[in-house]
Amino acid sequence: MPARKRAALERIPAHHAALLNDHAAFTQSLDAVDAGITANDQFFRAVLKADPAMLAGYLARMRRMGLATAPEPQPADVDKAVSTLKQVARDWSAEGASERAKCYQPMIDALEREFANVEERSSRRVLIPGAGLGRLVWEAARLGFASEGNEFSFHMLLVSNYLLNGITRPEQHTLYPYVHTFSNSLNFTTDQVRPVAVPDVLPSSLPDGSDMSMAAGDFVEVYSSPTYTDAFDSVLTCFFLDTAHNIVEYLEILHRIVRSGGVWINNGPLLFHWEDAADPRELSIEVDWTGLRKLIEVVGFEIEREEWIETTYAANRQSMLQYVYRCVFFVARRKP
Amino acid sequence: MPARKRAALERIPAHHAALLNDHAAFTQSLDAVDAGITANDQFFRAVLKADPAMLAGYLARMRRMGLATAPEPQPADVDKAVSTLKQVARDWSAEGASERAKCYQPMIDALEREFANVEERSSRRVLIPGAGLGRLVWEAARLGFASEGNEFSFHMLLVSNYLLNGITRPEQHTLYPYVHTFSNSLNFTTDQVRPVAVPDVLPSSLPDGSDMSMAAGDFVEVYSSPTYTDAFDSVLTCFFLDTAHNIVEYLEILHRIVRSGGVWINNGPLLFHWEDAADPRELSIEVDWTGLRKLIEVVGFEIEREEWIETTYAANRQSMLQYVYRCVFFVARRKP
Repeated sequence: MPARKRAALERIPAHHAALLNDHAAFTQSLDAVDAGITANDQFFRAVLKADPAMLAGYLARMRRMGLATAPEPQPADVDKAVSTLKQVARDWSAEGASERAKCYQPMIDALEREFANVEERSSRRVLIPGAGLGRLVWEAARLGFASEGNEFSFHMLLVSNYLLNGITRPEQHTLYPYVHTFSNSLNFTTDQVRPVAVPDVLPSSLPDGSDMSMAAGDFVEVYSSPTYTDAFDSVLTCFFLDTAHNIVEYLEILHRIVRSGGVWINNGPLLFHWEDAADPRELSIEVDWTGLRKLIEVVGFEIEREEWIETTYAANRQSMLQYVYRCVFFVARRKP
Repeated sequence: MPARKRAALERIPAHHAALLNDHAAFTQSLDAVDAGITANDQFFRAVLKADPAMLAGYLARMRRMGLATAPEPQPADVDKAVSTLKQVARDWSAEGASERAKCYQPMIDALEREFANVEERSSRRVLIPGAGLGRLVWEAARLGFASEGNEFSFHMLLVSNYLLNGITRPEQHTLYPYVHTFSNSLNFTTDQVRPVAVPDVLPSSLPDGSDMSMAAGDFVEVYSSPTYTDAFDSVLTCFFLDTAHNIVEYLEILHRIVRSGGVWINNGPLLFHWEDAADPRELSIEVDWTGLRKLIEVVGFEIEREEWIETTYAANRQSMLQYVYRCVFFVARRKP
């Protein structure tokens, strides 16, 4: 990326290039970006080295699915690596604290209020589908719950495995998650190439006897199994519902796996992931909140609380462009 | 688009489809979307009929540029049509008033303050590069200035020509600019398929003797001509600077065309349009605000005011996802 920008500098009049270097720190910024990319690369190398068996298993599975045939990284691979870096900052850095306060904290608060008796929590099973890098799963485990995350993405699973099991001290890595975007920057040096230390806490520092697990796989495939009928006292869905191909299927599964009287806590927008899929064979059913609310009640939940929370998602909070989500936060109880 | 969604309904279990239709108004929403698309189509047909000579000229030029060879509309064409509808709402509907208050009004206020003597305004030449659908050009003309817009996009030029010259009464058309997005909707009926009446004012209602013109073409090509040296008392750039391939070239031209002592008024983010161009031959030079600020002074302007304004751009303000720009608003004077 910096290579292309250096080449651009060669194509413009020499006095323009001189102005950019003398007054806009152009080449110095590219050098800093290169250094940031190198640091990011070191993090990913640590991830890949952490669990060779897990990596080999994923690679074999990707080959079976025909997903690992390209000899060179494709643009979509690069996008995933970049978004993974931003997710690490969101879930496991001081930089992400403000987003976690908007996204996770209201859910944690509702969970604590629902299960106020701390002694009983170890027998309370909590599921977090779309667990990503596992911070919410970890927070629930830290509060004493039997906490299970579910995640489909290879990228998320490899990185969360490293963060949860391979990290030996807080702030072990320095990442540069915002280094790839040159637009909407107030100051390249202090915004775009600023370092983010991860993790903010030692993930392996959970109290003795904590119960935290991650289940790999597609939510529909995994939790359609009768094993999970009435299995959970609570399910927490954060920026997850809109990953559905068929939202009604999600609702039916959620209703089946939450025990009677249990609570489903949600926070997120309705940015249906498959709406604009390039492949027309990808199924996508989108609903509005008005319709979704009715469907949630029809399948057998009662919405007890409904609030609106504005938040960004894995954002560079210093950028001149912010994607602000108006999330619907709700607590729904499975009707007896 | 609704056809694909109707097909999706056939692919899911019948009882899911029944739930969606009975409780989430699924098929009814698709019918409303179809009606909205038909209304949008009528607007575009009126645009295309308004000035056959202009249309023929553009089509001939597009053929020469090799841009009119595809037998069917391509996804990029659809995107442009959709974003044009949203731009119409932004510039020429009551719906867009809140964005115009954030984007245009501070610029208009600064222009009025600079040229407080109303009688002299007809001899004051004001240029608005990236004029889009012309509202800001029109507002400057209404205040008495000799107002010139510049725009490159065929879509914008065709539609602004119709709006400015072909419309005979306010609210002559009803558009559905938000009908194409099914995600992040609180209520399909009241959000996604709500009508927007355009225009909010009669564009041809400018006072007698008003001086408003639109120049078609690329900013760099048109205004590099010596004809324009010292030509303008003021230039207004709104969401324009980041359209540059080479921002230094823009700055030099701006400095050349604003007369000594004249003012350049800017409002917008730094979302450089060519940063992620798929074609690596497209030149893109991105700068941060810190560097750009220095370059503006180095080329010969003095920034007299600098403020920050948060605004959306052609947004559906009822959506659960808002792109919020932190725009830099400034008034810069060309040094003597």
